Amino acid sequence: MQSVIDHLQQNEDSALEELFEFLSIQSVSADSAFQPEMQRCAEFVQQAMQRAGLSAEIIPTPGHPVVLGQRIEDPELPTVLIYGHYDVQPPDPLELWTSPPFEPVIRDGRIFARGATDDKGQLFTHLKSIQAWIETEGRLPVNVKFLVEGEEEVGSDNLDNYLESNREALAADVGVISDTSQYGDGIPAITYGLRGIIAAEVRLTGPSKDLHSGVYGGSISNPVNALAAMCGALIDSEGRIQIPGFYDGVSELSEREQSEFARLPFSEDDFLSETGSTATFGETGFSTLQRRWARPTCDINGIVGGYTGEGPKTIVPSKAMAKITCRLVPGQDPEQILNALQQFLQARVPPGIQMEFLRFHGCPAFGLDPDSPWMGAAGEAMQDAFGQPPVFIREGGSIPVVSSFQQILGIDTLLLGWGRNTDNLHSPDEHFHVCDFHNGTRASALLWQKLADLRKQASARTAEG
Amino acid sequence: MQSVIDHLQQNEDSALEELFEFLSIQSVSADSAFQPEMQRCAEFVQQAMQRAGLSAEIIPTPGHPVVLGQRIEDPELPTVLIYGHYDVQPPDPLELWTSPPFEPVIRDGRIFARGATDDKGQLFTHLKSIQAWIETEGRLPVNVKFLVEGEEEVGSDNLDNYLESNREALAADVGVISDTSQYGDGIPAITYGLRGIIAAEVRLTGPSKDLHSGVYGGSISNPVNALAAMCGALIDSEGRIQIPGFYDGVSELSEREQSEFARLPFSEDDFLSETGSTATFGETGFSTLQRRWARPTCDINGIVGGYTGEGPKTIVPSKAMAKITCRLVPGQDPEQILNALQQFLQARVPPGIQMEFLRFHGCPAFGLDPDSPWMGAAGEAMQDAFGQPPVFIREGGSIPVVSSFQQILGIDTLLLGWGRNTDNLHSPDEHFHVCDFHNGTRASALLWQKLADLRKQASARTAEG
Repeated sequence: MQSVIDHLQQNEDSALEELFEFLSIQSVSADSAFQPEMQRCAEFVQQAMQRAGLSAEIIPTPGHPVVLGQRIEDPELPTVLIYGHYDVQPPDPLELWTSPPFEPVIRDGRIFARGATDDKGQLFTHLKSIQAWIETEGRLPVNVKFLVEGEEEVGSDNLDNYLESNREALAADVGVISDTSQYGDGIPAITYGLRGIIAAEVRLTGPSKDLHSGVYGGSISNPVNALAAMCGALIDSEGRIQIPGFYDGVSELSEREQSEFARLPFSEDDFLSETGSTATFGETGFSTLQRRWARPTCDINGIVGGYTGEGPKTIVPSKAMAKITCRLVPGQDPEQILNALQQFLQARVPPGIQMEFLRFHGCPAFGLDPDSPWMGAAGEAMQDAFGQPPVFIREGGSIPVVSSFQQILGIDTLLLGWGRNTDNLHSPDEHFHVCDFHNGTRASALLWQKLADLRKQASARTAEG
Repeated sequence: MQSVIDHLQQNEDSALEELFEFLSIQSVSADSAFQPEMQRCAEFVQQAMQRAGLSAEIIPTPGHPVVLGQRIEDPELPTVLIYGHYDVQPPDPLELWTSPPFEPVIRDGRIFARGATDDKGQLFTHLKSIQAWIETEGRLPVNVKFLVEGEEEVGSDNLDNYLESNREALAADVGVISDTSQYGDGIPAITYGLRGIIAAEVRLTGPSKDLHSGVYGGSISNPVNALAAMCGALIDSEGRIQIPGFYDGVSELSEREQSEFARLPFSEDDFLSETGSTATFGETGFSTLQRRWARPTCDINGIVGGYTGEGPKTIVPSKAMAKITCRLVPGQDPEQILNALQQFLQARVPPGIQMEFLRFHGCPAFGLDPDSPWMGAAGEAMQDAFGQPPVFIREGGSIPVVSSFQQILGIDTLLLGWGRNTDNLHSPDEHFHVCDFHNGTRASALLWQKLADLRKQASARTAEG
């Protein structure tokens, strides 16, 4: 084991160099203009897997391809299904980046690039730990299947189909994903709960063209006014979402969770400076951590309509559009919430306006038992690598594949976060601390051994019993 | 007089050719990128005035320059102050134009170009009628001052200062403006009332950068949600504007006006096909003409915030912006309405959001006595040129200069519309009927004689008396 750790340390520079090559590929899945870069990125992942000692293939889907690497050492060993995604969020607004998003650089001990933490940098730790095992020991202590998709940032639309069609090929004992965060600087975390999500786009059309607001104003419904009224009614001044039935069945936090949340170090001042906000705001009666991890939301992610250039323009616009996502918590059904949102909006469409409602991906919230043995093994590996035991937390984001692993493949997933909430994921100047990259790689290498030990202990107990 | 009319007919083609040159200049005042074109357009107007027989100068302002042409024949003759504007609305969305907005063409008897009717084509009729008088008679029957500005589409911010500083140089007996419309096809109109306007832009800033909606959603005010709620509260489901005090002092229509409005030919079906709408909608209890001409409005002209590209993006946006205009009717004070709008919005800003409120131009509504002798003279000129008497109407748009002429120069203004409401002004495929251009030019030539006759009749009455 020590030789693996030593090998990792000796090869830190070349690992970073290889990661930089990965980060320089503009793999933006949301925008079809980046299609050739997506293909190039999949090929990079395949070759990196092969360099690490895995067999690897690119599997086409109706969208962006999946890359699957694997190495089966021995059917008696536990099999780990690692997941990551090579696609990244769109980099705009570009003018807010200190250095270009696809030209990775290290400043202040951090790697700056789109995808540095979400998820290229984090998934790369597992690839490097596998490579270190094979290059030093000639083998892995576990069997590995490594699945890297290209559609996580646009809803993983084709992943479930792929999982369903390849249940046997993907069969595993446990999932491992590093696409979450540490709880705080130097406080590693294992995430046992995630919020779900629904996403939609609402498009309104009023008059067939922009009209003069003097000649026609007041006599024709204005789709921007209508959209504002429709979307503006979604949340009241107490932060409560007004969609009928929205909170039906929502699981409240247990007393134990409430007290554990309250024990976690949390500074409202740090939170404000991290977000660049002057005040927190949310549903009345809940703390900031509760609002982020355990309460559902309704955010308008974007809105546009009419004239948005310089100066005034006196028109009644023809069209307006808004993108809406709701974060869900255990007890909420994505399909029901999407339907309720659509009905809520449709009921507010004024005469003369046509509404179109586009549904994007969705997934339910996710929860895992913090007392499972997998959790224990992961906790030990992280403690050894980071120098202190991880905390068990929930997170506000959604990783749809976690639900899919549970529902389709029947496995639990270890969510091991090497990054930090302050890494500007989805924002300009996204970054990943160099030390987190190396600690994460080390924790990953240790984890394969701990998972193998778990199986040995279980076998020993069986032999004794 | 007949020689003037004949001259106009003989020179129709060259007049159109010259107008096309005018329309090909991209004089978009709202966008500073078009600055050089604005200067080029002012020079074109100066040269066209000189060709017509006026002395002409370009007068700089802190914004776009004013062009002033004049010809004083005899201090005893009445003096007419003609007004027009050489600036045009932004042409976007460009993809909805059948032919490029600054490459004028004639299709189906119409001139298609941005500014064809608003206002280059209409103001050009007066220039051509003046030229015909001077080229055939060697003189005009009235004194003429011809003022053409470049900031009408962005609020004429510098015009009032110019008028106030040049009261004597601009002294006149009556104003003439062709920047309104006929009532319907072949029903020429004199407009005796206009709505006023206020215009503002509201900008919200929440977090200092776009945030991950999973990590932060629910705990920080979302500026797009906030803007939707603020703007969505402006109008209720009955079309009533909710700004406190908004309707205070609003002049109701007289019984005579109500019955005259009701007598005007108006087809709801034609109106719907003209606007490309499936239904009319507005303040409960008023007809479509009343809503357009005599009731105040509150339209959001544009809104933008967050991610508006393809696919979903799961962010809490940092910023949101909306542009708002209110059309005003007699009895409403622009400054008071702007203040009330700002207060209405400010009161709805949630914690953690900063609001910035930008004020653009504004002007009060305008009304004139339909029984004045100027109106009579204009009515006769239009009847002779168009072959039928004009109707006396109000219009929903705003022409701030009309209030300024009244308040600063102390003169009434004749609003003589040659264009049509269906000319797509402010929209893609703006156009101007070729026959309206020629009829307007003829009516203008006749008007100068009728205004001169009015003075002679008054003098004769004085001599008799």
